Amino acid sequence: MLEEGVSISSVQESTRMVQTGTSILDQYAAQAREEIDSALDTWSDFDSNCPTRLRDAIRHSLLSSGKRLRPLLVLMTAEACGCSRGAAMPAACAVEMVHTYSLIHDDLPAMDDDETRRGKPTCHVAFDEATAILAGDALLAGAFEVLSSHVEPASIAAACCIELSRATGPTALVGGQMDDLLAEEAIREESEWTGPLARQELLQSIHARKTGALIRASVRLGAVIAQVDSELLHRLDLYGEKIGLAFQIADDLLDARGDASTVGKAVGKDIHQGKLTFPGVWGVDESACRAEELVSAACDLLGPLGARAEYLIALAQYVLKRDH
Amino acid sequence: MLEEGVSISSVQESTRMVQTGTSILDQYAAQAREEIDSALDTWSDFDSNCPTRLRDAIRHSLLSSGKRLRPLLVLMTAEACGCSRGAAMPAACAVEMVHTYSLIHDDLPAMDDDETRRGKPTCHVAFDEATAILAGDALLAGAFEVLSSHVEPASIAAACCIELSRATGPTALVGGQMDDLLAEEAIREESEWTGPLARQELLQSIHARKTGALIRASVRLGAVIAQVDSELLHRLDLYGEKIGLAFQIADDLLDARGDASTVGKAVGKDIHQGKLTFPGVWGVDESACRAEELVSAACDLLGPLGARAEYLIALAQYVLKRDH
Repeated sequence: MLEEGVSISSVQESTRMVQTGTSILDQYAAQAREEIDSALDTWSDFDSNCPTRLRDAIRHSLLSSGKRLRPLLVLMTAEACGCSRGAAMPAACAVEMVHTYSLIHDDLPAMDDDETRRGKPTCHVAFDEATAILAGDALLAGAFEVLSSHVEPASIAAACCIELSRATGPTALVGGQMDDLLAEEAIREESEWTGPLARQELLQSIHARKTGALIRASVRLGAVIAQVDSELLHRLDLYGEKIGLAFQIADDLLDARGDASTVGKAVGKDIHQGKLTFPGVWGVDESACRAEELVSAACDLLGPLGARAEYLIALAQYVLKRDH
Repeated sequence: MLEEGVSISSVQESTRMVQTGTSILDQYAAQAREEIDSALDTWSDFDSNCPTRLRDAIRHSLLSSGKRLRPLLVLMTAEACGCSRGAAMPAACAVEMVHTYSLIHDDLPAMDDDETRRGKPTCHVAFDEATAILAGDALLAGAFEVLSSHVEPASIAAACCIELSRATGPTALVGGQMDDLLAEEAIREESEWTGPLARQELLQSIHARKTGALIRASVRLGAVIAQVDSELLHRLDLYGEKIGLAFQIADDLLDARGDASTVGKAVGKDIHQGKLTFPGVWGVDESACRAEELVSAACDLLGPLGARAEYLIALAQYVLKRDH
């Protein structure tokens, strides 16, 4: 089963690292997720100026059991760069709020029309479309309230708002979702598809914006809060870019070969809907191989952080191994 | 036609003031609107990472001929407090972007289901629902990008992000729209309506959030950028609160007695849909009288600004007299 030139001992070593990494990660993530969930719960405990229905809809989507990948990246990056977890927590909450807003809006009937998410009914199914649109809007605005009101000093809060708004706007997250919808339409109508290279470029460009930008911004936010120098910021930025792409490839692979009860949403739906996916363009094996290469290159960039990078390395490895 | 105790000369004086005020305002507004439109045009000239369809939808709604009331308030307040127009322009653009996002989402079929706005097809009619949702999202995120990237110094940029996000979030603009939809539903189902007092309180509470919060934030943003002291900020805040309510009353009056070609949207629709409106609760004459009182009280608050308040006074008077 082994490829030529790969020794058994190097595979064992790599397996051991992943296991150790996962165990290190599990401990960190369990504690940090509890703190993130508690902070999100506090934020969404609005006063009576927020209608109960809106509050319930926001909490339905925000407090469900997500992986919290993005806030974990904010906290791990900040801590690896010598900053306290508490100082980075507002930014961690803000990225999760933006992520949740984007899921709520992407799930709407006019968009991807999904009925389950994280094993629960999507927001517009549990409530209604108008409430889901407004819950998403409130989370997007709320993310900037949390950042601007709670990150200190104010000059760093402003820098954080720049990072998050750029990652969310028309040339990033929102633009990526628009192109994803347009690509789906084009595939259905079999128009404008000139070959595998064009598909591959479009696919990477969509995900660099739709998924990649916010993952990259999570790492950058942690670094900005820790006030790292420009050399380290650049390395962390590239780390974020690479694991963002690896994450999306792994997500497509999960959809292609996953099990609905573990993944928490309808599996195989992407391919059934004729969506542009990495396994669809590169095949399953090639996709898995490229994701591994990206994670490996991402971890190599963290050299200057030494042992302090251990959680960021473990998280990168988890991106490949996760089953939901 | 005159009420007892109101002399003809005081009416003539008041008419003269309004005419002078309108003329002063016209000159200021024509020049400022040109600068605002130019800044919004520059902002929305995105690079190729923004899909053309999304760019077109954003520009369709953002660059249509709006009154630009909110950005005018930002600029006038900042200038009245000794700050340059250029320094306040990013905040002026940001409030107009938030206002435009809220119009696009409010017009959606799942919300108010409006087909025309500012005399043009609404965003989801000109494009489609998914594009309109995303255009709104992009404008909301973009508002924070403009504020955080272009307001200086960074500490003031952060203070501006606090103001705008609070005015937009679940306890303000978004909460007001949710309660407006819920009130409409309750009226249709004739449930939970205990009398005129309850209606009046709910109506004021909805508009303090749905319309009032952003108008108030516009004034506050101008004041924050000009770095005024807390006494003047408080006065300007009250001015903003009062003209925000007067504006909504005037808007309901326009709908109740306006002419569709001037107003630019279907007239009488609010009452036809059984919406909660000020003329519906207080009657037309009482509503007009209360709006005048609010504007008068708002102008009285500007005493400490002396002659520098002339545009803010003229704008408050325009709120009553506008015909679209």
